[in-house]
Amino acid sequence: MGEFKHLVIVKFKEDVDVEGILKGLENLVSEVDAVKSFEWGQDVESLDVLRQGFTHAFLMTFNKKEDFTAFQSHPKHLEFSATFSAALDKIVLLDFPALLVKAPA
Amino acid sequence: MGEFKHLVIVKFKEDVDVEGILKGLENLVSEVDAVKSFEWGQDVESLDVLRQGFTHAFLMTFNKKEDFTAFQSHPKHLEFSATFSAALDKIVLLDFPALLVKAPA
Repeated sequence: MGEFKHLVIVKFKEDVDVEGILKGLENLVSEVDAVKSFEWGQDVESLDVLRQGFTHAFLMTFNKKEDFTAFQSHPKHLEFSATFSAALDKIVLLDFPALLVKAPA
Repeated sequence: MGEFKHLVIVKFKEDVDVEGILKGLENLVSEVDAVKSFEWGQDVESLDVLRQGFTHAFLMTFNKKEDFTAFQSHPKHLEFSATFSAALDKIVLLDFPALLVKAPA
């Protein structure tokens, strides 16, 4: 019923071309129709003890879990994942059905 | 300009009343007008090596960073944070201006 979310938080290795990775992500989500929406951000605010070295959050939204499954096995995703993984120092990844508790007014 | 996001991923301690915590969060976001929207989820899908023990993601959205700042110092938030922190085994927290790369169709 509800949307399905693919959440990735990372710390990039030093000397990685972060702009290039972001461009690659942008291309990926534009090429794969199953991705409903994509937003990301770079932490600007939280305390080091809470951020724990992680710097970027990437959040993809799918209309349903099946769309996420299709995305996961999509050749463009597999191709990009190899590049993405090689650029990372740390990653945590969570995939979950999203429960909207408070909706935008 | 863009929205501001407050992202929290956690692993709860064993024997914690997770339902009670979720109820507390629900109350919190309903009581604090600065919170534009709130959604959360429990991981159902990712590999242990990628999930790294984290189980839940909580994502609050604010119209602007100032609203997030107001939320942070809100008495209801400070009160709930103490309860929330006590229930956690692990936490990573990222606060960031959200960049929407692909908008919902």
